[in-house]
Order: sequence, then structure tokens, then C-alpha cells
Amino acid sequence: MNMEPFDLVIANGQIVTAADTYTADIGVRGEKIACIGRGLRGRRTIDASGCLVIPGAVDVHVHLQMPLGDITSSDDWRSGTMAAAHGGTTSIVDFVDPLPGQPPLQALEERLAEAEGQACIDYGLHMVLSDVSGKTLAQLSRMIDVGIPTFKLFMAYEGKCLTDDQLYLALREIARLGALALIHAENYPIIRLFVRELLAEGKTEPRWHPRSRPAIMEGEATGRLIALAEMAGAHACIAHISCAAVVCQIRAARARGLPIYGETCPQYLVLTQDVYERPDFEGARYVCSPPLRAEEDQAALWKALADGTLQVISTDHCPWWWQDKERGRGDFSRIPGGVPGIETRLSLTYHFGVRAGRLTPQQWVNLCCTRPAELFGLPGKGKIQVGADADIVIFDPERVMPLTAERLHSQVDYSIYEDITVRGWPRATISRGRVLVEDGRFIGLVGHGRFIRRRLV
Amino acid sequence: MNMEPFDLVIANGQIVTAADTYTADIGVRGEKIACIGRGLRGRRTIDASGCLVIPGAVDVHVHLQMPLGDITSSDDWRSGTMAAAHGGTTSIVDFVDPLPGQPPLQALEERLAEAEGQACIDYGLHMVLSDVSGKTLAQLSRMIDVGIPTFKLFMAYEGKCLTDDQLYLALREIARLGALALIHAENYPIIRLFVRELLAEGKTEPRWHPRSRPAIMEGEATGRLIALAEMAGAHACIAHISCAAVVCQIRAARARGLPIYGETCPQYLVLTQDVYERPDFEGARYVCSPPLRAEEDQAALWKALADGTLQVISTDHCPWWWQDKERGRGDFSRIPGGVPGIETRLSLTYHFGVRAGRLTPQQWVNLCCTRPAELFGLPGKGKIQVGADADIVIFDPERVMPLTAERLHSQVDYSIYEDITVRGWPRATISRGRVLVEDGRFIGLVGHGRFIRRRLV
Amino acid sequence: MNMEPFDLVIANGQIVTAADTYTADIGVRGEKIACIGRGLRGRRTIDASGCLVIPGAVDVHVHLQMPLGDITSSDDWRSGTMAAAHGGTTSIVDFVDPLPGQPPLQALEERLAEAEGQACIDYGLHMVLSDVSGKTLAQLSRMIDVGIPTFKLFMAYEGKCLTDDQLYLALREIARLGALALIHAENYPIIRLFVRELLAEGKTEPRWHPRSRPAIMEGEATGRLIALAEMAGAHACIAHISCAAVVCQIRAARARGLPIYGETCPQYLVLTQDVYERPDFEGARYVCSPPLRAEEDQAALWKALADGTLQVISTDHCPWWWQDKERGRGDFSRIPGGVPGIETRLSLTYHFGVRAGRLTPQQWVNLCCTRPAELFGLPGKGKIQVGADADIVIFDPERVMPLTAERLHSQVDYSIYEDITVRGWPRATISRGRVLVEDGRFIGLVGHGRFIRRRLV
Amino acid sequence: MNMEPFDLVIANGQIVTAADTYTADIGVRGEKIACIGRGLRGRRTIDASGCLVIPGAVDVHVHLQMPLGDITSSDDWRSGTMAAAHGGTTSIVDFVDPLPGQPPLQALEERLAEAEGQACIDYGLHMVLSDVSGKTLAQLSRMIDVGIPTFKLFMAYEGKCLTDDQLYLALREIARLGALALIHAENYPIIRLFVRELLAEGKTEPRWHPRSRPAIMEGEATGRLIALAEMAGAHACIAHISCAAVVCQIRAARARGLPIYGETCPQYLVLTQDVYERPDFEGARYVCSPPLRAEEDQAALWKALADGTLQVISTDHCPWWWQDKERGRGDFSRIPGGVPGIETRLSLTYHFGVRAGRLTPQQWVNLCCTRPAELFGLPGKGKIQVGADADIVIFDPERVMPLTAERLHSQVDYSIYEDITVRGWPRATISRGRVLVEDGRFIGLVGHGRFIRRRLV
Repeated sequence: MNMEPFDLVIANGQIVTAADTYTADIGVRGEKIACIGRGLRGRRTIDASGCLVIPGAVDVHVHLQMPLGDITSSDDWRSGTMAAAHGGTTSIVDFVDPLPGQPPLQALEERLAEAEGQACIDYGLHMVLSDVSGKTLAQLSRMIDVGIPTFKLFMAYEGKCLTDDQLYLALREIARLGALALIHAENYPIIRLFVRELLAEGKTEPRWHPRSRPAIMEGEATGRLIALAEMAGAHACIAHISCAAVVCQIRAARARGLPIYGETCPQYLVLTQDVYERPDFEGARYVCSPPLRAEEDQAALWKALADGTLQVISTDHCPWWWQDKERGRGDFSRIPGGVPGIETRLSLTYHFGVRAGRLTPQQWVNLCCTRPAELFGLPGKGKIQVGADADIVIFDPERVMPLTAERLHSQVDYSIYEDITVRGWPRATISRGRVLVEDGRFIGLVGHGRFIRRRLV
Repeated sequence: MNMEPFDLVIANGQIVTAADTYTADIGVRGEKIACIGRGLRGRRTIDASGCLVIPGAVDVHVHLQMPLGDITSSDDWRSGTMAAAHGGTTSIVDFVDPLPGQPPLQALEERLAEAEGQACIDYGLHMVLSDVSGKTLAQLSRMIDVGIPTFKLFMAYEGKCLTDDQLYLALREIARLGALALIHAENYPIIRLFVRELLAEGKTEPRWHPRSRPAIMEGEATGRLIALAEMAGAHACIAHISCAAVVCQIRAARARGLPIYGETCPQYLVLTQDVYERPDFEGARYVCSPPLRAEEDQAALWKALADGTLQVISTDHCPWWWQDKERGRGDFSRIPGGVPGIETRLSLTYHFGVRAGRLTPQQWVNLCCTRPAELFGLPGKGKIQVGADADIVIFDPERVMPLTAERLHSQVDYSIYEDITVRGWPRATISRGRVLVEDGRFIGLVGHGRFIRRRLV
Repeated sequence: MNMEPFDLVIANGQIVTAADTYTADIGVRGEKIACIGRGLRGRRTIDASGCLVIPGAVDVHVHLQMPLGDITSSDDWRSGTMAAAHGGTTSIVDFVDPLPGQPPLQALEERLAEAEGQACIDYGLHMVLSDVSGKTLAQLSRMIDVGIPTFKLFMAYEGKCLTDDQLYLALREIARLGALALIHAENYPIIRLFVRELLAEGKTEPRWHPRSRPAIMEGEATGRLIALAEMAGAHACIAHISCAAVVCQIRAARARGLPIYGETCPQYLVLTQDVYERPDFEGARYVCSPPLRAEEDQAALWKALADGTLQVISTDHCPWWWQDKERGRGDFSRIPGGVPGIETRLSLTYHFGVRAGRLTPQQWVNLCCTRPAELFGLPGKGKIQVGADADIVIFDPERVMPLTAERLHSQVDYSIYEDITVRGWPRATISRGRVLVEDGRFIGLVGHGRFIRRRLV
Repeated sequence: MNMEPFDLVIANGQIVTAADTYTADIGVRGEKIACIGRGLRGRRTIDASGCLVIPGAVDVHVHLQMPLGDITSSDDWRSGTMAAAHGGTTSIVDFVDPLPGQPPLQALEERLAEAEGQACIDYGLHMVLSDVSGKTLAQLSRMIDVGIPTFKLFMAYEGKCLTDDQLYLALREIARLGALALIHAENYPIIRLFVRELLAEGKTEPRWHPRSRPAIMEGEATGRLIALAEMAGAHACIAHISCAAVVCQIRAARARGLPIYGETCPQYLVLTQDVYERPDFEGARYVCSPPLRAEEDQAALWKALADGTLQVISTDHCPWWWQDKERGRGDFSRIPGGVPGIETRLSLTYHFGVRAGRLTPQQWVNLCCTRPAELFGLPGKGKIQVGADADIVIFDPERVMPLTAERLHSQVDYSIYEDITVRGWPRATISRGRVLVEDGRFIGLVGHGRFIRRRLV
């Protein structure tokens, strides 16, 4: 046993894991949790009395610096990961999305180059599969080798949307490799039609956005995907679930023993489609896909998180400058889709989940940290455990925080939670043994973040 | 930090928790896990290389030394807990069952006196509620205070069976106190009728036992109990679930957000009702209630364990000497109901669950150790965690063990798994820092076991 | 072909059957429909132009002159059947309910003696089974022989409520004989308990009545009955269904191929439990069991009628003088349960069903006339068909009728539909070729009604 | 009243309608049922003693003289309608399928010209919608005016398969017009893929046909269609349902109150996919789409007919000469799809439905005659009723008939029921008062059949 003091000790906190809550000290050596015990001695000790000590949160669905035509999502690798750190997130998984005809590995290299030296926290990448030619599918195995074992399949968006046979081919190869599919489940032909018709009728305001993407068709797409995945034998996770119709499909599939998983996001748990009715184009803030839904949908999502039907809460963080959102004045379909959220997930789900009695603290940690890391294959992440990365959040359950743009750190000029003040906010965020944020100040290093070579699970 | 060597170190094993699998050493001081780290130094070190290191298993449903008329279940506190230790179980929850008119606390004292000095592992007690008079219900709070926060309600058995209004009254008080109900869900009037009719028709062999207790009525009773619990606002766990009909009821209840839980046992997962057809009264061995069921029921139970519909695997261990079973020759209803199983749970579920690909190692630990301890309020049990009791099993995944009566340690003259050889068996069982069993030899102290003051959860 | 003119011709009406709507004349000879054709010549001809011509309605659930302690339901055979005729009902099925120890046949004779010379329309009888001794069950076959092939089983009410084993025994004998069980499905022990507790808390007003009989337990009782009937192999019809919970149970049973049927009543389709909140004890009017429920329950009932899950609309007509209802002042449980309705069924279901687009005219006829007659074995009833009894209603779809006590003919001093005015009311009611009611005047003979020897189906 | 004898009297038979069974004579004048009575006098009288007298059967799904590339389905209007008459079918609905770019009305005229002078029984036409341009949709109203109120939409087949947005556009227009959609629900992209892959693997025999069109994707397509129809507000009938997966989808939709209907065919009720395994290419006989399925699917279909989930039994009659089937040697996908069945429906469903206790006689008549006529808007068809067309079948329940090609009248050189002998066969078939077939001999006129101008319902 190494008798030297630990590099860092987090002392006296209440450690919350996916399975339990207990009091102990955590001793960190280098980048790892070296020891969990009591009375540990460190070169530096943070007293976490009165706080929850939880795994650094894992957000498996973000879009930093994402190009969309001639604009780019407003958070770059630097600002986005810094905001994440403020909110207690220490790992993200973003996307690499090859251009048409671009070799996946080259796209990956470019994407990695962007992040290099900029990311404040660790990051993985999913690969978007918008081409399922034999040539592309033949490279999946290579992508897995380099640390990308999860593949995003779209059932919406021009240029990304796969047909059913393409989905099946992709799912079958994913199944063969033991990888995981992440699915955007909507019905694109219907959306395209509805958008065209609404616009033709002069219905151009943001309030028409949810009407162009009905919940019933999100349920339909999920049912279709499940049928395809069942035939293919594939594991699949339905992304950013917004409504009860999808919950029903997943619950039924899981009861039949199928390896189908589900992810939802705070915006679907906390907001409803009423916001699209706000005057003065304000509804544009909230435009994301699938759209926000009704109160019944919210209730169904919370129940599905509690009974194990859904496994993951992530953010689908994809902020746009207000001036970019304004491109959609006169055509809601041109409002770039996506909302900021990378910083607020842990606190929103603590406040509206744990504090409101909808989730236990263990479920909260499981849904925001442990299960995402496990399901998406992030080694050493999402858990307070000897040998794991020393990614740790000291979460003050009583700290009050208004979720205004001013107080938040995402590089975007509005918040979708302006009116909400949460109780519960990180006091410190630690990544691989380095304190990144303490008492609201970022004290980490830009560029500290590393690429996570994820594994098959 | 205490620089002394630990009293015991379990080194180099693969620790499996409900949430993860990792490699580390466990340092024990006194009765507790003091530290999880690497390279720990102990006065004694057990090298667990190649083994799984899991929490001591928790069996929340056993019947030791249980009187039934003039006979008694064959395992006493000594033999039963010793057998449990051999199989990797370090905590059990048995029952205190007041005689008619007996004050519950007095019954508890008597039951504790029996166990005192005999139990080799720690033990809690549920209280059987066969009387729901105001006087009795007024004492539930006191029972909780002394460490009994879970109450068994019977929907079967003469003298124990509660009527629906009695069930409701009990559930309502249990809800008010924040306690948990454990339910034997069958339809007693129907069973009584069927037994009488079968016997009157001369159908007296064990093969008639399952026909007297139809799966459809176990489903019915569960549906009824869920309705009562919903009205009462009570948390309830359905015990020893045997069939798909019950799984359906529980899944539907949970999807509606109700706090309904379910327990099943290895016998229902591994055997089917075909065994009752065996000649020469051999079927009597397997007589338990609910009875063993069909293959479809088995499949439904495994799926329900995997998708989170059921939370607990316990044993309902209740062995009877063969000579006592033989009392039921000529009248299957007089065969004392119950099967031995206290030693074989962990290995059977590893072999037929994990090895067969039906459960992950984490699910196995969760179902046999962590969730039972959590749901039934056993502090410090069911987890590998600093501050927790040093109840640890070093489980050799390759050790082969035939489950014959000869090789097992329960005090009973037959096994219900004679033909089964499992791969996966404990190499050592440790309770509060004391090695109880090592390489198949019991080296613990009789009387080591203590009463567990359980808590509300 | 008999060239004589018909005794009666109903000409030019639009005949509505369970299967279709068409225009033709109906020729009656004696008591039967002799001919359906065009241009028929009769000694008397009624021009039904502009009217629907439908089968005399069949109400398989009424309680005339029903004793309850020292009072009796307010409609006797004379007044009740006269009111029925006004509303277009030409057949009823009431109950024979043997006193404890009384031989069923004797009870039947007494009941028939009451009706003899009083009934204005034809009547059958169900037999109430509140005793399931072998002696009683042995007489079921004899009851069937004399025209009583349907047996009422109660899961509520002191003295009538059967235990689960008794229910099963009755169902099994009913199955053996090919008869039909009619079930009052509630959970009596729970109701008894809730009533006692509410009264003990001083909650004595009618508004507490629905709280004493929760919908969830009506669903529970139905689930239990279905399980028992499935084991017994019995055909069963759940009576007076009030709520969605029961609909779900029946739909699931039928999807599994079980011969389970359901009946509801206009009060459950048209009123909600809000009426119990009315001041000045007015809620007492609406006290019936099961009680009126919520709007969601109404919607579920209408859907279940339309999709074939429920087969029968009857009335459960059981009126009480207001002075008798007043016995329940200070104790809602002493309010005699039951509401008047024998006259208003056809019109209420036309107005709120057909006119509101919830039912087709064919479904309306099927639910009020044809299916009840078929399911409950009334030969020659419920259909416009050659050889069938000439029980015919000429229904004016445009006739407006306020459903006030003053305008209705039941012998009771209030209406439960005071505020409702329906469009659609019988212009004439014909029973076995005799015009009983024409343009609101009763012109039939008291005593015209005969006992219907019903048949197994 | 016309005192002249009727042109034809069918005397003494047992009339079976959708609602009841009774004994009466039917008097026919000209083409209509003029009178139902007793002792009717006719210029010609057929004694139907001992027989069931039912409405001429209505087959709403046949393909006569259907071109497929350079071949044509083997029954022309003459032979097909003659075979139908032999089997008791007096109305069919076939299809008009405009060529690409062809105006629908022109296509209709050509199709009518084919039938003119050839059809032995009455015939309607559905219109196939394989083009949903605004121009085509604008003509739906005109098609309805000329008697075509039902539109076939394909989710399979090259050149016919509509995309989801096209389906929606068609359904919305159909909803707006109050018409009915008839749906071929399979997932074409998947089928196309599977066919290609199987062939590429050298799997060319008929046994691969069912593997190329999985039941799970028939269920998927149905779920998708229901979602689209729900959004569109359309009434839709799923055609030729082969499996349990579809039944589940329809049952759930109907329970939610949606106007979704279902049709199945005798081949799915009587045969299973085992036939595709027959040696020597014999499996080719049974190639139809969707393919025959498993026994569990059969059982689910029978239950769905009995509980009202499915409304229609038709045939999808589409026979091919054996030499045409043989084109698919070496490539199962080139086997022309379709089986003969126009003559055997009534008897197969009587034998395997009524005689086997799965359907009542009324349900049989309803499913084969009344409901199809009602749902698809055939005025005057499918019922024994004054004013209705005198389309009548005298069905001898005891007549034995082996279903060999030799004994049957379809113009095709094999039968798919060679091994089956039914008990129950028509003794006479009458269409609009003309006896077409009597005792197995066709005595009608070729060209007697007329186009049925169907109506919106």
C-alpha cells in the first residue's frame, strides 16, 4: 500500500452511486480514484460535508460546433465543455458526421483536430451513418477499433434520413459487431409534407413547429424501428424521447425481452409545447426536434425513468445564436433546431426529479452518470469506484441557482429556462483528479479534455 | 488515515456490484469494509485472483425451525444459517409469527431467543400479520422501532389468510407508517375447495398439488392485492412469484407508477411442474406453494428479472424431513409445503442466469444482494462499499458443484436439484470480517450471527 | 298464402334491425309478424312514414315490486310495465329471489302470481343464486326447464354476496348446463368496511356513497370473476358496468377468446358522480350500485359499446319513493339503492348515442333489443322478423320529450333526468300485435303481459 | 298488396341472417325480395327444407383477368364469376387499376367493357391509387359518384407502393370524402431487400417466399398505417390479414375508438406456411402475399373474427395457371402471387368455422355477406330483407364436397385445398331472382352480372 498522501481527497461527503448512498472519503492519485476509505490524508483535501459526492455526469448526446449550412451551433468545443463542467458534466459524447463521400476515418480526424486543445472535459464521438453502402458498413469495425462503438441512425432530416431497408442493413451490421444503434425516430416523409403544407398556408410562426412533427408519428417511427431491430437482432437506443407514444412502444418491446433502450432530455421533462405559443417569435428559442409536447407526455416520461423503461437522460445540447434562430422568421422550418442545455441537466433533474419525489438520488445518478457510461461504453466513467477516473462532482443540494443566460456559461444569448430557479448545483467539478470548477469559477485548463476510446458493451 | 495494516484484505478479485465490475482490493477493519483501493496491506490477505468478489448474498425469505402442527421445518437456526453461509448468503430474513392472541413483541422475543447463539450469519425478521385488529395494528409502529419494518400478509392458508377488508386495513396502516408489505398471493377459498374436491375424487398423489392451486388464481390474487394496495397507497412486494400471470399484473401496475415489487425463487426459474409427475411419491419433494409451473412461466420470470419488473430473488427455503413429507401419502394436501434452497440460490442463478446469458453479472448481484437489502431495509448489507458490513463472497466462476443432498449442508435428506451440476460456487464467505466458509469448510463460529435491526426505506 | 288482410299492418316505416335499415311494411297476424313486404293490406294499418320501425325493446335487468326490508321498489308490475311500454320496451327480465331456505320453484310461483294479471308487457325472470348448496344447484336444471336459463350471482350485498369458492361452484354448474351467469361485480368486504368507516367519521351524506364503492374495486371484482369463469368454463355477463376499469378487464378477456359479456345502463352513460354533490340530500336520487362515475368512465363505456366489448344496454330500473330514499338521511348506506329508468332507455340512447354519432342506428337496436334477447334467450323477441312476436316500436326520431317525473309514467315522485329533453320518442308500442301505447296514451290491457319461457343459447 | 303469385318462392328453409336464424318463406318478384312470410305462393317454388337460406355471399376482394406483365390471372370475368356462383357468392368487388398516366375514368371504362356480357354475377370495383398527385386525388369524388367509394392503397409492390406521405395524402382525401381505404399492409423496402438477398444466396425455392415477407413487418406496416389514418381521420380496412401481429394492432386501434377494420381470407384460416416446404416446387401453388403463416397466427385470426376485431372474410382470389407459376422456378419472387379461392370461401368457413364451433351461423353470415356489403357500400346486397336484391343461397349443411381442382370451377389447373373435403355446400345460388346454379349445374346466363354502383357508408 502506497503510504504517501493522496494527491486529492474529497472528504466527508455523502457519496451517491447508482445503487446506494454512504459516507466516505475518496482518495485520488493522479487521474484515478485510488482509494475509498475514511480519514484519508491528501496533499489537498476538499471538505464535502453537507454535499452529495457523485460521479462526474455523462452526457451522451451533445452537438458542439455543429455545422448546419453556413452556420454553426454556437458552443464550440471550448465554451461548450466549459459550460458542461460548470454544470457537473465531465464526459460528453458528440458526433462525427462524415460529409457525403468522405471516408469516416478522415471525418473523425478532422473532428478530433477541432477538439484537440480546446476541450475542457473528456469527449467521445458517435458516428453518424447517413450512408449504408457496403463500403461504409465495412468500416464500422474499424470505427469500433478506434473507440466509436455507437452509430447514429436518422429517421428524419434530408440527407440523413435512412429508408427502412437502409436502417435494417445498418442495424444488422451493428448487431453483427455487437455495437449499439442510437436512433432519431421520427417519420421524415410526413414531417416534410406537413412543413410544406403549413408554410404554403402561411403558417410560418414557431407555433406551427410542433404541429409539423406529431407525437403519433414519433411513436410510429419507434414501433417501426423496434420491428427492424428485432429482425436484425440489434441493440438500439431511441434518442431524445419526447412523448408517451414512444414510451409505450419501448415498454412493450422490453417486456418481450428485446434490447431496446431509451433516452430523454430535461427539456422534455420540464417544459411543454405551450412555450411555442409565446409572442414575438420567442417560441423559436424552444424549437428542437422532436418538439416539446403535452403535460401527459411529461408525466409518462417521468414514470418511464422511474420504472426502468428509459435508461438515459442526456441533453441533445445544440444551441444557436439568436440571430441564427431569427433566420426562421417567416419560415419556422428554417429555425435551426436545438436548444442549449449542457450545463443544466444535473440540476434540473435533481430539482424536478429528486426533490419532487419522482426519482431517488440513486436513480438520478444512474440516469445521468452510470447507465449512460455503461450503455455507451465509456470506460472508467460514470461511477465512484477505485480504478475509475477521478471524475467527481461535489453537489450542494441546497445551492440556489437561477437558470438565466447571464448566470449560465454556454455561449448563447438566451436561456430556455429563464424563469426557473433550481435548488441544487455543483460546488465543484473534478475531472481525472483536476478541479475544473469550484464555487462557480472555472479553474481548469482548456485542452484538458481527452478523446474517450469507448468500448463495445 | 489509519496506517495500520487492515485486519483482512481481499486482494485482486474482480469486484461485481449492482452497477459495475472492476478490480480492486478490499480492506476490512473489524466488521466493516474500511477501504477499497489497490495494493492494500492486511494482517491477513486472501488472494481472490480469478474470482468474482461480490456482496454477501441477502435472502429475504426463509423459514428456519418453522413449526407446522407437531412438526418443524428441518433446518434449525444453526444448520440453516450454516448451509446459507456455504452458499454465499450472509444475511437472511425469516419470520416471527405470533400465536393467536400472543403479543407480537413476546413472539419476537421468543423467536430471537431461538436464534441467539445458534445463527452463523446475520438475520432479520418479518412479522406475520394474521390478525389485523386495531390492537395489533397499533403495535406495528413499535415493531418498526425494534427493527421489523416489513409485514407478511397471506391470501392463503387457514388461520393466516386475510379477507380483502383485512388486507386493506393492514395495507393502509403499513402505508401510513411507510413500511412494506410482503404478500403471499393466492386465492385461498378456491384452493380449499379444489383440495377438498380432488381428495374426494381419490386424487391424492403429489401430481394433484399444482392442479389445486392454478396459476390463473395466483394472477387473480395479485391483481386484487394491487387494487387494494393502490387504494391504500401501500408499497407491496409479491412473494415467490411462480407464473406469467403474476408478471403481467406487476408489469402493468409498475407502468402506472405504482410501488409494487416482485420476488421469485430459483425453484420457479429452474424446475417445472413436470416433476410432480414423478413416480413413487417423489413429487412430494417439490411440493411448495405456489407450485412449480410450466416452461412458459419460467421464460416469463427470467424476462421479468431482466427488464426490472421483478426485483428480488430469494429462496422461500423451507425444508422438511422426508419422513415429514411422507405424511402426505394418501393426501397431497398434508404434504408439508416447502423446499430446501438456502444454499443453492447464488450458484443456480449464476449458472442458469449469468452463464446462460439471461442476466448480466451486475443484475445477478443486484437481484440476489443489493436490491433485496435495499428494498427490505438491511443497513450495511448487500453492497461492497466503504462503511458497509464486511459481508463478502469470493465466488469462483469455474468451480463445479453437483447439487446433491450429500454435497449440500442443509439438514434435510434429499435435494430438489439432484441432477443438476452448476459451474460457479463460493470459494469463501465472509461475514462482518470473519471468514465463515473457505473452500467448502465451515470455519466460522456458531452464534456469530446477529439480529439485523432493519429500517424503513 | 293466406289472402285475408293482415290484422295489423305497419306501413311505410324505415325498419331498423341490428344489421340494416330498409323500408317495408310489416304484416301482423294474431301475435306474430306474419309477413314483411310492400303494399300489405291490413284490417288496421298504421302509417309509420317518417318513423323508425324497430323491435320492441328488451330490458333484461329490472326490479319491479322488489322488497327490501319493509319497503318495496315503487313500481309494481302494473305501473312498471306500463312505463316500460310508454318508452318502447316490450319485454323485461326481472328477478326471482328465493328467501333463505325457500325452494326456488316456490319462489318462482309466488313471483309469477304477483305478475299475473298485472303485467302490461311480457316478462322473464332471472334466478338469484344466493345459496350454492348442492341442493340448490341441483335445481338449476329444473329452473332452466321452466324458462329460467340465467342466474344472478352477487359479489356484493349482505346475504347475497358469494365467496369466491361459492362463485366458482355456481359458475361451474352454470357452465355444465350451458346457462349464463349475470354478475354484480363489486368487492363487498371493502364496501362494507368503507361504509362503516365513513359513517363512523360522520360522513353520512349521499356524496360519500361513490367513495364507499370505488371504481378500482369494481374492476378488481370483474377481474376476479373472469378468472373464476375461465376456470369454470362459464359464460358470464357483467351487469351494470359503470367504469373504464371494468371495460379493460372485459376487453382483455374477450381478446383471449373467453365468453365474457357486459351490460351497462343509461345512467352510467349520461350522468356522472357530480350529481352526488348536489345540496339538500338531492344526491340521494342518484344512489345506485355501482355508483355513477367520472366523465372518463362515460367515454370508455360509449367506446366499448361501439367496438363490441359490451353487448347490452339495460336499465337496472329500481325506483324508490322519495320518502323511502329519505330513510338514508343521516346514513347514506340506508338510502335504498336504485334509480328509475325503465321508460327512458331507448330515447336516451338514441339521443346521446345515435344522434350524437356514438352509435349507428343498427348498433342502437342491437344493444337495446336484439343482442339482449339473443344473449338472454328470449325466443321471438328483439327482432323484426317473420315468425317473431309482433313486438314493434314506431319510433319518431323528431319527437321531443322532456324527461321530467311529470311526463314519465313510472310510479315514483322524481326523475333523475329532470333537466334533460331528448329528441326521439316512441309514437306507438306494439306487443304481440296489440297496440299498447299510441301517441303517449296507454291503450293496452293490464294483464296482457305473459311470462317468457326463456331458452339456453 | 299484389295478389299475384310471386315469381319465385324459397320455402321452408331456415333463414340465417347476421342477427338471427328463423324459418320463413321468401317471395321474390322480379329481381327483389318482395316478401318474407309463410305459405307464400310462387310461380316457381324451391323447397329449402333442411337447408340454410342465406344472403348471396359478398366477396369484396378478387382479381379476375388481372394483368401482370405479359400474363393474366387465369380466371376471366366469365369463368371467375361462374365459379363464384357455384360457391354461393353473388357479388364480388374487383379492382380497376389505371395504367401510369391513364385517367381513372378511362381505366374504369375499359375494365367495365371487359366484364360486360361476361360476368355471371354482380360486380363492383375498387380503384387502385398508385398515384396520389393532386390531379388524381381531384378525381376521387368523381369515382365515388360513379359508384366507386373505396380505394386501394399499397404498402408493397414496385410501382404501386406508396410512401408514407403519399399514403397520408390519399387517406386525408379519402377521409374528407367519407370514403374507405383498403390497405395492403406490408413493408416494401424490406421485402425488396430480403428478396434480393435470398436470391443472391441461391435461396430460390418457394420455401423462401415467407421468409422474404416477415409477419413482424406486416404488423409494423399496419401500425404505421393506423397512425397515418388516425392523423388523417380516415376509415381504413386492412386487407388479407395473415397474422397475430396485425390483429394486435387493429384490436388496440379499435379499443381507442378508431375506425379501423380488418379482412382475412380462408387460406390464412385453413393453411399454414408448412405448405411452402413441399417438394417439387409444389409450394409455388400457395405463393400469395402476405404469405401463409404459423398455427398461432391462425388461432389469433379465428379469435379476432369471433370477438369483432375483424369484420370481413373475403378471398383475394387471384389464380394463375401452373405454367405461369412455373416462371418462378429458380426465383421464388417471380412466382406470380395469388391463389384460387373464389368458390370455396363460404364452405370452408362453414366447415372450419361454424361446424368447428369457432363461429356462430350468424357470425358466418355476417362475415361473409352482411358486413362486407355494409362496409363496402353494396346497396341491396348481403341481406335477406324485403326490398333487397334477391341474392340468395340455399346452403345444404350436410352436402359433402372434396375441394379438388376437378370438382371446382375456377379456370385453373390445381387446387390449394386438394386434401380437404368440406361438409356444407350450396344447393342453389340465386342472383336477383335468377337461379344461377342448382345442384352443381350452372343454369344462369353469362352476362347476367351487372356493375354495382356502390355508395359511401
